[in-house]
Amino acid sequence: MLVLFTDFGLDGPYTGQLKAVLLGEAPGVPIVDLCADLPPFDAQGAAYLLAAYEAYFPTGAVFVCVVDPGVGSVRDAVIVEADGRHFVGPDNGLLAMVIRRARRASVWRITWAPEHLSSSFHGRDLFAPVAAMLARGEAPPGEPSPPDAIDRADWPDELARIVYVDRYGNLVSGHRAAGIDQGQTITAGGHTVAHGDTFSAVPTGAAFWYPNSNGLIEIAVNQRRADAVLKLDVGAPITIGDRG
Amino acid sequence: MLVLFTDFGLDGPYTGQLKAVLLGEAPGVPIVDLCADLPPFDAQGAAYLLAAYEAYFPTGAVFVCVVDPGVGSVRDAVIVEADGRHFVGPDNGLLAMVIRRARRASVWRITWAPEHLSSSFHGRDLFAPVAAMLARGEAPPGEPSPPDAIDRADWPDELARIVYVDRYGNLVSGHRAAGIDQGQTITAGGHTVAHGDTFSAVPTGAAFWYPNSNGLIEIAVNQRRADAVLKLDVGAPITIGDRG
Amino acid sequence: MLVLFTDFGLDGPYTGQLKAVLLGEAPGVPIVDLCADLPPFDAQGAAYLLAAYEAYFPTGAVFVCVVDPGVGSVRDAVIVEADGRHFVGPDNGLLAMVIRRARRASVWRITWAPEHLSSSFHGRDLFAPVAAMLARGEAPPGEPSPPDAIDRADWPDELARIVYVDRYGNLVSGHRAAGIDQGQTITAGGHTVAHGDTFSAVPTGAAFWYPNSNGLIEIAVNQRRADAVLKLDVGAPITIGDRG
Repeated sequence: MLVLFTDFGLDGPYTGQLKAVLLGEAPGVPIVDLCADLPPFDAQGAAYLLAAYEAYFPTGAVFVCVVDPGVGSVRDAVIVEADGRHFVGPDNGLLAMVIRRARRASVWRITWAPEHLSSSFHGRDLFAPVAAMLARGEAPPGEPSPPDAIDRADWPDELARIVYVDRYGNLVSGHRAAGIDQGQTITAGGHTVAHGDTFSAVPTGAAFWYPNSNGLIEIAVNQRRADAVLKLDVGAPITIGDRG
Repeated sequence: MLVLFTDFGLDGPYTGQLKAVLLGEAPGVPIVDLCADLPPFDAQGAAYLLAAYEAYFPTGAVFVCVVDPGVGSVRDAVIVEADGRHFVGPDNGLLAMVIRRARRASVWRITWAPEHLSSSFHGRDLFAPVAAMLARGEAPPGEPSPPDAIDRADWPDELARIVYVDRYGNLVSGHRAAGIDQGQTITAGGHTVAHGDTFSAVPTGAAFWYPNSNGLIEIAVNQRRADAVLKLDVGAPITIGDRG
Repeated sequence: MLVLFTDFGLDGPYTGQLKAVLLGEAPGVPIVDLCADLPPFDAQGAAYLLAAYEAYFPTGAVFVCVVDPGVGSVRDAVIVEADGRHFVGPDNGLLAMVIRRARRASVWRITWAPEHLSSSFHGRDLFAPVAAMLARGEAPPGEPSPPDAIDRADWPDELARIVYVDRYGNLVSGHRAAGIDQGQTITAGGHTVAHGDTFSAVPTGAAFWYPNSNGLIEIAVNQRRADAVLKLDVGAPITIGDRG
């Protein structure tokens, strides 16, 4: 399975061109669009989302990961193998949290280069062909590199800010809910919200936090857009209240 | 064929996670994204759209249907078989009109449960695995239930309001056009519009109604957004004028 | 490979209905969404994008092309074969630049008609079945027509205006970059911008132009939305400065 995790959008021309390469070079391998609306330029937020989502995918999956404001610059391109899944992307921190959370990780710096490499679309020209090689079972076309040499290896274990606003306006943080008690509150933008079990357990229009379906702390408002009601967006810090 | 009919959006992480489950549990079955931008929280409007769209899909298709503001609450999850097609979703009215319009319908209340069921993402954890079972030809994993015990079995045959605004700004109603004469007008938001055969049959900027490609009454403006020109949105009632 | 190039959007119900037809009538042929967010009503801009993108797809690909404000009117429906790729769509100029740029092109006017043809959704009812026939290797179901009889055969070789704004706010023009020197400037909306090699080669917030990954002149701003910073949108003319 090939999995796309990008800021390209699906409607526009980038994902389609990338898929045409994958279909041509790894025919028959199913392609899943995991996420195409990552906030542009925010490789850090995306890194914490990826680490939360990837565990739900099967061993053997190959992820093409692109949030890459430095495309065309000197940053390296890397392959990560973490607990049996492969990840291809820029060495800008996007893959740092996958390595951190893995029981076992290997990293290669990509040395293969295509005949024609555009300066702005490495997803199509570099990452997709490399992902296709991995999906075909070939060896990583690069040089082994120590996992702790990945860029941004110093990012914190948890990211206590909003990293994504979903289609409903729910505010997804980069902080895992494991270890947080239901009695603890979450504060963001001056709003302090209590835990709620489900949307329907709180009144319409009421804000609450809950462990989302990928294990992250998420703030929502029942049948309303939390981003609008609370006036919060990607980047807003969250604070976890003390145990009662 | 597996068909997705949801309010999840395609760009964000929900549809992709659901598809990963389908690909893993029903490999080789094609997946079609019928609709991913249903208005959140409006199971009623979506019910009338589904009943209009599903007839264009082949016998044997399995629909995963999710507009589910009550996810995590006590509402049941159901399987509907209607004229040879299967539908999996919440028992909140979303499948009520498919049953109403079917020549022959059967309903099962889902009793199967996954090992881990998140409180907010039954699409991935419950509906997708059940749809995969049906796509593999297995028996519905539930208890038979009378079709008229479905939630919202009392909704009207036609829904005389706007249920969807498409990418062009066209206003789709939940009322079928069959039985309406071309001489009848449609009134919405104080605007009364006449029938038009095609977009190009009316002047640029002129509003008209027509039977859309799925048989619903739709209001459009030639080469303009009808929602902006007429200042109408989902929920606006429509009135059908008398026969002349 | 079937390739979709439309203004339908992916989230809404149109692309999914079209794909259901393709899957039914050309089973097993992969479908790629090249572009679904073409500006509605702008067949001309889309024609220059299509001519830039299609060259990246393999020989044998069949494109379903729909930007069709005149659907339901008397405009013809056509099939184009250009350098081994097929294109199906309305005869409104959308395919004119593919013909212009081809080394060898053939055109057929579609004479086949489905049993039921809606007045507003020829993508599903006409173009998709015809594309499926071509993908199955059947002969074009139409009458041969001279390539220079295509509508809008008089459009210019290059279109010196913005034709598309991408997800990042980058401004894509319909003018190819080949033949333009790096020393030449591009002026649009009163802003004159110089060439930049990559996003990271200019300061954050600075505007520049570059040959994009499909060979078109594109104006961007490093880590900002060029459309917002420069207040430009689809339709804005660009002017190419003299050689220094």
